[in-house]
Amino acid sequence: MTSLIRPLILCGGAGARLWPTSRESLPKQFAPLLGQRSTFQDTVLRAQRAGLGRPVIMINQVHRHLAQQQLAELSVQSDVLVEPVRRDSAPAIVAGCLAIGRQDPEALVLVLASDHLVRDEAAFNAAVEAGVPAAREGHLVTFGVTPTHPEQNYGYIEPGSPLSGSARSVVRFAEKPAADVAARYVAEGMLWNSGNFLFRASALLDEYGRLCPQSLAVIRAAVEAATPCGGARVLGSAYEQAAATSIDYAVMEHASRVAVVSMACGWSDIGTWDALWSCSPHDDAGNAVNGSVEIVDSTDCLVSSSGPLTAVVGLRDIVVVADRDAILVADRKHSGEVKTLVNRMRLRGRSEADAHARVHRPWGWYQVTDGGSQFQVKRITVNPGGRLSLQKHFMRAEHWVVVSGEAKVTVGDEVGTFVANQHVHIPLGAVHRLENMGTEPVELIEVQTGLYLGEDDIVRLEDAYERV
Amino acid sequence: MTSLIRPLILCGGAGARLWPTSRESLPKQFAPLLGQRSTFQDTVLRAQRAGLGRPVIMINQVHRHLAQQQLAELSVQSDVLVEPVRRDSAPAIVAGCLAIGRQDPEALVLVLASDHLVRDEAAFNAAVEAGVPAAREGHLVTFGVTPTHPEQNYGYIEPGSPLSGSARSVVRFAEKPAADVAARYVAEGMLWNSGNFLFRASALLDEYGRLCPQSLAVIRAAVEAATPCGGARVLGSAYEQAAATSIDYAVMEHASRVAVVSMACGWSDIGTWDALWSCSPHDDAGNAVNGSVEIVDSTDCLVSSSGPLTAVVGLRDIVVVADRDAILVADRKHSGEVKTLVNRMRLRGRSEADAHARVHRPWGWYQVTDGGSQFQVKRITVNPGGRLSLQKHFMRAEHWVVVSGEAKVTVGDEVGTFVANQHVHIPLGAVHRLENMGTEPVELIEVQTGLYLGEDDIVRLEDAYERV
Repeated sequence: MTSLIRPLILCGGAGARLWPTSRESLPKQFAPLLGQRSTFQDTVLRAQRAGLGRPVIMINQVHRHLAQQQLAELSVQSDVLVEPVRRDSAPAIVAGCLAIGRQDPEALVLVLASDHLVRDEAAFNAAVEAGVPAAREGHLVTFGVTPTHPEQNYGYIEPGSPLSGSARSVVRFAEKPAADVAARYVAEGMLWNSGNFLFRASALLDEYGRLCPQSLAVIRAAVEAATPCGGARVLGSAYEQAAATSIDYAVMEHASRVAVVSMACGWSDIGTWDALWSCSPHDDAGNAVNGSVEIVDSTDCLVSSSGPLTAVVGLRDIVVVADRDAILVADRKHSGEVKTLVNRMRLRGRSEADAHARVHRPWGWYQVTDGGSQFQVKRITVNPGGRLSLQKHFMRAEHWVVVSGEAKVTVGDEVGTFVANQHVHIPLGAVHRLENMGTEPVELIEVQTGLYLGEDDIVRLEDAYERV
Repeated sequence: MTSLIRPLILCGGAGARLWPTSRESLPKQFAPLLGQRSTFQDTVLRAQRAGLGRPVIMINQVHRHLAQQQLAELSVQSDVLVEPVRRDSAPAIVAGCLAIGRQDPEALVLVLASDHLVRDEAAFNAAVEAGVPAAREGHLVTFGVTPTHPEQNYGYIEPGSPLSGSARSVVRFAEKPAADVAARYVAEGMLWNSGNFLFRASALLDEYGRLCPQSLAVIRAAVEAATPCGGARVLGSAYEQAAATSIDYAVMEHASRVAVVSMACGWSDIGTWDALWSCSPHDDAGNAVNGSVEIVDSTDCLVSSSGPLTAVVGLRDIVVVADRDAILVADRKHSGEVKTLVNRMRLRGRSEADAHARVHRPWGWYQVTDGGSQFQVKRITVNPGGRLSLQKHFMRAEHWVVVSGEAKVTVGDEVGTFVANQHVHIPLGAVHRLENMGTEPVELIEVQTGLYLGEDDIVRLEDAYERV
């Protein structure tokens, strides 16, 4: 396909319904839900294989390093635009269109959600191609999925008369329906609203400027004030003043020239565990299984473990998802209620609602693996080139045992290199730093001792990632 | 009650239906199923509170240290008799009767399962007292529980004409019945066979000698050849030749003078997760909850976690039990099938079928908390007075960081005492030993590095527990 189509990949979703795999600290689109790669990575690669132009990644400040690490694993060149705060999809798309318009005034923009599944890539690409003529003519082209069943969790589009190519006009957008309404929609030939779009940047900006002129002005200012930071560009703080609205509410439902192209490409937004079960390979009894699992006399279940052996006996239509620190067991047909659960855990101050046991940092990750009243054990992985901040703690001493790689360690005025089976002691109050100057990851076990072991007992004296 | 009644507490059960809490490495009777103490400890204390004589504990070789540690926690004096191999309940009871008969020829023996729940202790004690006259007269007295519902998982006893006191003769013993048969049994006034007994030692031995003379001879030889070992007595190897049979099959169903005393004492054998759910306190929605748990829109569930946050959504009649290394999710009404699961896991060579993550040793316990291809992290707790063997490894080096207590550490010719925030390195091949000479437990984190990290890479040069 033409390199004049620029993919604009949106990464703003939280995916709370897929807790505990998806949490704020590693939301759905960055988690390996279906195989080794994340859906974000699958989306980037799908655009690359289709021969599209350089992608623009719209990412929240909090997840910038995650996205950049996952992009680095793919060796895909891209423009990363960072939102200082989340403002829903309309401002993100508008900012992306402004950035693309400055580089390629004639480009078409293909807006792609980063957390969707597309099983039939050729059918998806064909639908995009089919949308090009209408988009060139100035239509805002939506992609409507041919329903496979009366789904209540999607919005619907009613297609109208033919426009250019196979694109048709849009009679109306409809909200998520009740069960009987969904059945009628499907019978009437309405399509699922996939939330992917194709248009000329100028066409979208014209409509948005007409409907939300003040927000367009502040987003334009934010794009013009964008500053480079670690291989990305961070939008200016004016972005905070943009109205937080979805692109459907802000533009699509009010725009004059909207078109729809239908597609049947094995699409899912993987919005719930039930949807993931539907998308996964099943055994003869309808069970989708992942990780260390034993199944006895159970049917139509999703059972997934990232660690502990998970055994099920005599179950029907149940979802079991086991993380090291958190486990979900839910009725598959009520798995949308997981969002209620997450909200309740937030109200109760349960850190597991939003934070994974594995904590991602610009330099790599750490995970608490054991702990007691006056000690804590962590596993720490430092990526090649990663540098923790120069830091000290007031309340805890630390012991590091390197188990792989070559760690460069600073303690006070001493600097040394440590390899597997070597130990470093960091006394309470000592200024220290951990770096990986090698080409392999550094892994080490940290044992902390002290009366207080909170993450907030840290003084950063210097930081490669500007966190001082 | 009279101290001439000697409790004989049987600890031979495996409790596979309560996996993953109950496993061969820490079976049901030693696990804290209902509160802080194990049912074994509850049984010992119940006998003590009833004013009975010194208990005899029949224990398998594998679990001897577990039983002795749990007895030590209670400060209860007892005789511990160790079976070199398991031979079911008849040989265990016979060995206990022989040992008691040598000490107290006139004693009555009260056989108690160590894995049952008794909620109404006074009612249980009253039933035992009611059985004394019949037992004194030479009857083998069984205790029959007044049914609360038509249970299929218990055997039944049909009581006959009155004997001494409130004891009655036994018309017959019946196997676990089908549902309709169970309902009829209850309507007819039959009783649940509780598996607890009261008799003169000589009365039981006479019957057993009549029915199984060869087994009696080898068990008698094993008791006479018993040798002291670490505060217990280990039966001689002749015990292996005894026929492995339950006391019901071997004696009760064939004996001439059997009596039954009925009791209504809130009894359960806690044989399945469903039974444990029935015995546990419930919330308004019928859920029994233990540990770090969140419940959304669920009823009549058992949800128990010994570690990870466990959240359930939209469930009915489901059991969720989460251990750090293994998770069970089962339909509560089919929780007896957990035994099928455990057998299948054994066939597949899954160590989790029988081994807990926490491994109990005579000196304390250890648990693997993290690991990779060339490293492993353990938490080690050494009880006061505990001594690990003097040992060395060919394939791994170790780092110890003490986090509490005072550890006495030998490495080569060096001996030192180490406290929290101190580190010891044990190079590959170095002879070393860890001891706790203090009064508080020693806790330490061990980081192993090497190409092979199996437990079998150990040479024990000297061992306080005769494991060299």
